[in-house]
Amino acid sequence: MASNIPDIVISRLPIYLRALERLAQEGYEVTSSLELGKRLGISSAQIRKDLSHFGGFGKQGTGYRIAFLTEQLRQVLKIEREWDVALVGAGDLGNAIAHYKGFANRGFHIVHIFDNDPGKVGKQINGGFTILPIQDIPRVIQESGVRIAMIAVPAEAAQAVADTLIASGVKAILNYAPITLKTPPDVHVQYIDPVIHLQRMTFYLNYTP
Amino acid sequence: MASNIPDIVISRLPIYLRALERLAQEGYEVTSSLELGKRLGISSAQIRKDLSHFGGFGKQGTGYRIAFLTEQLRQVLKIEREWDVALVGAGDLGNAIAHYKGFANRGFHIVHIFDNDPGKVGKQINGGFTILPIQDIPRVIQESGVRIAMIAVPAEAAQAVADTLIASGVKAILNYAPITLKTPPDVHVQYIDPVIHLQRMTFYLNYTP
Repeated sequence: MASNIPDIVISRLPIYLRALERLAQEGYEVTSSLELGKRLGISSAQIRKDLSHFGGFGKQGTGYRIAFLTEQLRQVLKIEREWDVALVGAGDLGNAIAHYKGFANRGFHIVHIFDNDPGKVGKQINGGFTILPIQDIPRVIQESGVRIAMIAVPAEAAQAVADTLIASGVKAILNYAPITLKTPPDVHVQYIDPVIHLQRMTFYLNYTP
Repeated sequence: MASNIPDIVISRLPIYLRALERLAQEGYEVTSSLELGKRLGISSAQIRKDLSHFGGFGKQGTGYRIAFLTEQLRQVLKIEREWDVALVGAGDLGNAIAHYKGFANRGFHIVHIFDNDPGKVGKQINGGFTILPIQDIPRVIQESGVRIAMIAVPAEAAQAVADTLIASGVKAILNYAPITLKTPPDVHVQYIDPVIHLQRMTFYLNYTP
């Protein structure tokens, strides 16, 4: 079943899940594709079509039970469990990622932090992590079986870091470095580059004098 | 011309531009849609089609002059000029954004940083910014005419911050808070939520014991 579903559909599911979690926090127990669509700026027809790939979750006219739909989506995305994540890079960005509280409760926790700066290696970060040297990636990743990593190193270093992570068994990379990575077909990569996002918007702005 | 071009095409242009800048850094003066495609994992036909919206940049068989194409794309995206950006939120994430050196040379620089924590207001950040109180957003934004803002506040505060920014004239928001914002049609929003990116990948991972 997994191979039949377009990537673009999969990419929307975490957005639905986040909206459902927010509705639950606000005290709602049921919702509808119409309400979800209004919140997300997505057509209700699109939402229903996306969810239909995974079985009918709602009854016509009665909407979706939020707790049930949330659980189903967590199972589809495989985050009804916790995933260990390795972080490479303990600079300003890596430090912010290490302190980010948003990973907990949403399926992820950082278990290793690596850096290549001898001045940082051995130091504690966020109360519990000791920064490990980047040379330890193969041993540590293979021992712990971590499959997901985040790369927060300069662009020039990112490809080599990715190569090392992938050789050690990592299958999913969230890359914050402003560079497109070359990876084998069975490795998934997502990108975060704030400048790309800003540049996607300036096109639509009028000049101010 | 601008209104005819699909958003999805516009969204790819910053990726092309980043790849061209990297090629230039590596010393190249010319490239081809084939080479760009290989670097980016995008078909050369797609690249040529996207660029054709903006006039023919290359000659058949001779490829693209990188400096020329770079300049054309910067003009299309309106980043041959510098844009002022306001940052709201000076916590761990806001601090990392304030220190991020990647904005310079790519069209953006932060000019104001706001926070609602009285313990932070008045403090200096990154050697040059004094953190301003969030209540100053209307006055400061209107005085300086800033059109672009980044939101790095908790989810519960993000909508109110967005409303204030938009009322003050902001037309483009990069939202790091894990929530979908409600905005008028003439305001553009881009999102960065690392958990969404991670959840887009776990679907494809096999379970480890």
